[in-house]
Amino acid sequence: MDPDFSRLDEFLDERGLDGYAFHDDDSNSDLLYTTGFGAPDPFFAVYTPEATGILASSLEYGRAKRESRADAVKRLSDYDFQAKRAEHGPEAAQQLVRAEFLADLGCESVAVGSSFPVGTADGLRDEGVAVTVDADNVVMDIRATKTDEEIEHVRTAQRANEAAMARAEELIRGAEPVDGVLHHDGEPLTSEFVQQEIEIELLRHGCALDDTIVAGGAQAADPHDRGSGPLAADEMVIVDIFPRDKASKYHADMTRTFLNGEASETQREWYDVTEKALHAALDVVEAGVTGEEVNQAVVDVYDDHGFPTIFTDPETETGFIHSTGHGVGLDVHEMPSISHGGDELRAGHVITIEPGLYDPDVGGVRIEDIIVVTEDGYENLTDYEISLV
Amino acid sequence: MDPDFSRLDEFLDERGLDGYAFHDDDSNSDLLYTTGFGAPDPFFAVYTPEATGILASSLEYGRAKRESRADAVKRLSDYDFQAKRAEHGPEAAQQLVRAEFLADLGCESVAVGSSFPVGTADGLRDEGVAVTVDADNVVMDIRATKTDEEIEHVRTAQRANEAAMARAEELIRGAEPVDGVLHHDGEPLTSEFVQQEIEIELLRHGCALDDTIVAGGAQAADPHDRGSGPLAADEMVIVDIFPRDKASKYHADMTRTFLNGEASETQREWYDVTEKALHAALDVVEAGVTGEEVNQAVVDVYDDHGFPTIFTDPETETGFIHSTGHGVGLDVHEMPSISHGGDELRAGHVITIEPGLYDPDVGGVRIEDIIVVTEDGYENLTDYEISLV
Repeated sequence: MDPDFSRLDEFLDERGLDGYAFHDDDSNSDLLYTTGFGAPDPFFAVYTPEATGILASSLEYGRAKRESRADAVKRLSDYDFQAKRAEHGPEAAQQLVRAEFLADLGCESVAVGSSFPVGTADGLRDEGVAVTVDADNVVMDIRATKTDEEIEHVRTAQRANEAAMARAEELIRGAEPVDGVLHHDGEPLTSEFVQQEIEIELLRHGCALDDTIVAGGAQAADPHDRGSGPLAADEMVIVDIFPRDKASKYHADMTRTFLNGEASETQREWYDVTEKALHAALDVVEAGVTGEEVNQAVVDVYDDHGFPTIFTDPETETGFIHSTGHGVGLDVHEMPSISHGGDELRAGHVITIEPGLYDPDVGGVRIEDIIVVTEDGYENLTDYEISLV
Repeated sequence: MDPDFSRLDEFLDERGLDGYAFHDDDSNSDLLYTTGFGAPDPFFAVYTPEATGILASSLEYGRAKRESRADAVKRLSDYDFQAKRAEHGPEAAQQLVRAEFLADLGCESVAVGSSFPVGTADGLRDEGVAVTVDADNVVMDIRATKTDEEIEHVRTAQRANEAAMARAEELIRGAEPVDGVLHHDGEPLTSEFVQQEIEIELLRHGCALDDTIVAGGAQAADPHDRGSGPLAADEMVIVDIFPRDKASKYHADMTRTFLNGEASETQREWYDVTEKALHAALDVVEAGVTGEEVNQAVVDVYDDHGFPTIFTDPETETGFIHSTGHGVGLDVHEMPSISHGGDELRAGHVITIEPGLYDPDVGGVRIEDIIVVTEDGYENLTDYEISLV
């Protein structure tokens, strides 16, 4: 099923632009979404309301013709590249070919995303093509609303995620504390070992992975620390898994926090307040509510319990020091933003809700579910118990 | 050990520019190399001969201070971001902060790589910062010459690669042909299963992976087809593995072609000519020789044996349809280019040599070694037998 590009057509019409251009590799999900094609090396492409065109390398030409939804697949040799290269050098020759390719597709003016390469933009401008930066990221915004098929892709990735989380929980809960250090099969249980077992489980479920966070103790107080070394008893261990299904290329995202041993009063309070913040945010979610309002629900719970947040004190390095959530799809972090300034939620948005508290003296706790926004609330795509000890 | 940035200092001095700016996530190896820091979400940074600065999100601020080699780590709140945001909106506020951050580091003019985001470039220009595109990619060129430490990182990744290749070879060679289809444990042996076993082996050796190619028969005739479905007897299977060591973030890269069954005369000829092309290229490699000359050595072998190449016939879709090789380091594809127009090789360049032949009617063969260029030849980092059957 092709995505619905009518909003992109409207966008181009409103701005009086002929097309929307891309120049990137398959890490650019807007390009992947619009052309139905990705390649490990950057290629140039343009969408117009009449036709989508790809300028492929010789290496990718055949696959682009077979796999993409482009109406026109061209390659450098279609534009006398070797002659142009001999005369102007490789960079200038590429720019000339891109300009000719755009002219072929009737494009004298294009919108580009804000991350479009400035080298290509300046080159096109030199050739007389008007290049306008689309600061609103219209393609990203179109991508944010998922079709039922895309939601199924996220659900499939989330099932793999749950299997991997179960493996991590089994390792952590089943470990034997020896002198305060968790042991597995007589060896200290390390973050790296748990990460590896998670990743093997994900591979077996058809998922690739970016990174996995298994961070205990003070490491868990830094939300982006992946974690390393032996895990300790009586400490909170954050496990954050965000796999990508290899076939569909859609992500899932979930976090749980586990503790093997005795939870202190502080740990218990942090966990309970964070679970309360999760439910407070979920209670607010429905189409029409803003990401800012959902974020505020979390901030209010933490604030009521005396915890600092970056939204009440921008300088704080402890407490709730990130946003409540983000969209998930072809990118693991995409629109909408569930944060200060976050826009209105629409039915079909797939988002995370992930409150957390951090302080090197206590450790870290984070609980994250992935949900799909509906007209009158949400459907929780997460099927995994919330329990510290 | 910090990289040697004296050539970057010279570059800035020659162009009369104050600094070199970046705005990207950790997929940008120039940024990673220059600042010693990467993050999953884009951040802004600048190198100057006097100091390197990072403008981090609150989430990454602590880690950037600890892990990067930046002299100045700032965050949005150091520049009254909330007030600017309330007055100008989030995008404009970010641009104002970036301009102030650059002014703090004494930068009125910056070079940027050609893939620098045009939105950020246009925004800086609006704030009076001169932004010049460095089409020569000076940082990528500096990165191409590896230190001994970097070569050790590649070597470590290559040892993991060889373990994974051995697992793939064991599966393919050990499979039982049943009605022309390879079987393992009574089930058809699929590309996906071999890929999964390769990736598990890589994970166990501390490597992440991008993708792995296990492509047989006509699939192998498309150099970028990852391969899928059951593998057949008497067909050539290309196995191309390019892992990234998780700790060092350096890659390795190797390809072998295996056949379980009876090789036809054509398959045998293709394999032998390709092995001959590999050795012809290796014989040419030493510091001072150009990438173009190494590529030509491969083209000459194929041409002598009557095979088409894109260098002798740009329109061909069969024969030798890609370049001879590329640099390998933080990126799996980086400088130098071992192709038409490829520049002079320097001692310390880590490159692949990967001739191959492709035709849907025959299949595909590719043999790839990874080597380090030395003053008087090369050191082969690959320790893996070359054998079809």
